[in-house]
Amino acid sequence: MADLTLMTFDWVPEPPRGFVRDLRVRWALEEAGLPYRVAGVPFSDRNAEHLVHQPFGQVPWLTDGDLSIFESGAILLHLGGLSTALMPADPSGRSKVTEWAFAALNSVEMASLPWGLLKFTGNANETPAWKFLDDFLKLRLQRMEPVLADREWLAGSFSVADILMADVLRLVDRFDGLKEYPACHGYVARATARPGFAKAHADQMAHFAAADKGSAS
Amino acid sequence: MADLTLMTFDWVPEPPRGFVRDLRVRWALEEAGLPYRVAGVPFSDRNAEHLVHQPFGQVPWLTDGDLSIFESGAILLHLGGLSTALMPADPSGRSKVTEWAFAALNSVEMASLPWGLLKFTGNANETPAWKFLDDFLKLRLQRMEPVLADREWLAGSFSVADILMADVLRLVDRFDGLKEYPACHGYVARATARPGFAKAHADQMAHFAAADKGSAS
Repeated sequence: MADLTLMTFDWVPEPPRGFVRDLRVRWALEEAGLPYRVAGVPFSDRNAEHLVHQPFGQVPWLTDGDLSIFESGAILLHLGGLSTALMPADPSGRSKVTEWAFAALNSVEMASLPWGLLKFTGNANETPAWKFLDDFLKLRLQRMEPVLADREWLAGSFSVADILMADVLRLVDRFDGLKEYPACHGYVARATARPGFAKAHADQMAHFAAADKGSAS
Repeated sequence: MADLTLMTFDWVPEPPRGFVRDLRVRWALEEAGLPYRVAGVPFSDRNAEHLVHQPFGQVPWLTDGDLSIFESGAILLHLGGLSTALMPADPSGRSKVTEWAFAALNSVEMASLPWGLLKFTGNANETPAWKFLDDFLKLRLQRMEPVLADREWLAGSFSVADILMADVLRLVDRFDGLKEYPACHGYVARATARPGFAKAHADQMAHFAAADKGSAS
């Protein structure tokens, strides 16, 4: 029996709210209907205990009994093993989910996250390094477009691979980067229309809003 | 019984030789002592058949009987399931290998690969976008340094997570990016001193050199 606690920050500033990676884990947990607790660690102090669980000083991590797991990809594959709503049980199905999970994080997010952070920090201007990143992302989106034009979900049925890929593409969409990629845009719309996403998103927003209240009182 | 064929390019230009990602797969196969074949697909024509196996038009992919798997991370976890020389059989050990595999590709390589490509293309100059990527990589290396100062291998014993992390850091080392990170540098030296790496590297170099000869004749 799983005994799940999701660790996230106790508070974050406004801009990343709705995009903190605990959302991926919340979303998977909601899709699977697995019970879980949420706990917070200090945003302002990434202490030694934090680094034991998450060596990069980030969030999320998940504990399942004695097991502590970091990296959203690893956490989602673990949850996939707990529920066929997240990953098929047969080896071929699991293999497809696993390859698309890595594709989301290593082939697409490798381009999209630096791109998004440069957009966010106002450094998306005509330098060679920016152009390189912008072209890198376009290459990936050009390859994802026919894939997503051709199927509803990446690995046959909805899976943790879709949670990862849709969340990755959602950040590109935030900065209007999917305008020329209607299938990618439609995929993000389709994924985020799911009740599991809506609940996860609302819960993350409420978690950080409650911290504002707490610190104001 | 595994029936393994590694697909890579039939030829690549000089600069990426020794760094094409089929090396990660060769290395794992050598460590495990698993028999395998290597086959080549055209570098100059990423055709429809290629995209069926690798939707981004890259290499490697691996076939195991009827199963075709892309993404080096997914391939290495698959091989980890075939040999305890690559991944422990117990759930806790597998979980540690999985989280560090994702950490190599999503936390470190997300910073290091764009950084390496900008170095390679001569675009590593004082623009805000370059500075951002350079700082992003430093953040990650600063977190990896105490981890690697403290242990020989990431997940207890040598595993596919080390193949991925060492290969990721090896590219940083190629452009002298590990000078201030002696534990990271030592880790790369330790990993690449293994006979499995030496064999994989020599085989990749020979594979592409043979293609030069073939095209010259």
